[in-house]
Amino acid sequence: MGRTSDAKARILRSAQELFYARSTENVGVQEICDHAGVKKGSFYHYFPSKQKLTLEVAEDYRRCSAKALSEEVFCSDIPPLQRIEGLFQYVYLFHKKVKAETGKVQGCLNVNLSTELSTQEASIREKICESFSGGIAPIEAALSEAVEKGDLREMDTQAKAEAIFVYLQGAVMMAKAQNDPEVIFRLAKEVKNFVEA
Amino acid sequence: MGRTSDAKARILRSAQELFYARSTENVGVQEICDHAGVKKGSFYHYFPSKQKLTLEVAEDYRRCSAKALSEEVFCSDIPPLQRIEGLFQYVYLFHKKVKAETGKVQGCLNVNLSTELSTQEASIREKICESFSGGIAPIEAALSEAVEKGDLREMDTQAKAEAIFVYLQGAVMMAKAQNDPEVIFRLAKEVKNFVEA
Repeated sequence: MGRTSDAKARILRSAQELFYARSTENVGVQEICDHAGVKKGSFYHYFPSKQKLTLEVAEDYRRCSAKALSEEVFCSDIPPLQRIEGLFQYVYLFHKKVKAETGKVQGCLNVNLSTELSTQEASIREKICESFSGGIAPIEAALSEAVEKGDLREMDTQAKAEAIFVYLQGAVMMAKAQNDPEVIFRLAKEVKNFVEA
Repeated sequence: MGRTSDAKARILRSAQELFYARSTENVGVQEICDHAGVKKGSFYHYFPSKQKLTLEVAEDYRRCSAKALSEEVFCSDIPPLQRIEGLFQYVYLFHKKVKAETGKVQGCLNVNLSTELSTQEASIREKICESFSGGIAPIEAALSEAVEKGDLREMDTQAKAEAIFVYLQGAVMMAKAQNDPEVIFRLAKEVKNFVEA
């Protein structure tokens, strides 16, 4: 049992790594199996299709990102506006690390999946919308707290949180295009002004 | 001669349409030929590889977008800050039209190509960086003009232009994920504040 559930986890990890490095369409089931060291029969035991696997990859990424951000960025003992600056810093350092390890800025996995598959797979598009909503929520909470404390003027915190999230994703997209994580560092400088605008 | 150069244009148009609707990897050379009504031999006469075709698709899109924007948005008789609002309005209406015609928000073609291929094809990544620089330049020019006229405080107009461009692309990415062009309309409301921040 330990062995079989380990196979499932290995398939998921391999798919995540390979999809992230290239694209879903560029990576076949056989390559995922080879990378994970499992047989094709085992793959189809856990995942009836590559589409179902992709959904689990997106969900796993959403869950891990949310956990890491809630532990390292959106902590209640950090002043709310500092959390938002911390988010950009966290994302910058993440991509700097990926570049150091792989030679490439690879973007945000769920943005990559959404951009590649949104027009083709409604289930994946919907899963990623859920992931994005989960990314916006703690930004909104931080803004609301800042307004409540009087650190920020009254504003539509939901609209502003979506705008900040979208700006961050645009910055990551540009860093991938330039293969340069410093793009995120540079663009993060505008965030404080943007939040307060 | 007219006939053969027409074949090249048809291949380019077909590839652009099919790549835009799905992804480059999801579309094969045979499908492009069928869609364009040309033989495979003719394809390879004009394009030694799919990668060369993709480069031309990206370049064609860059050229057409730049032309349309310079004629319809970045006009010297429009006050500079209005041009930037006009850019968001133009992009919103473009995606509203694409959705009405195809049922899908398909994103920005060059962002799609960059997100799918940046880690795999350096030549395409570089071509798209060029395209993005071309997208940032008229925003920077508008900001500089606004500063010169006293409509805007002194600022690093290059950094601000990049930030605005990245925000726009993030908004388009989110509109694709939600399959809803109204996302762009909604996020455009923050732009005036963002520019002046």
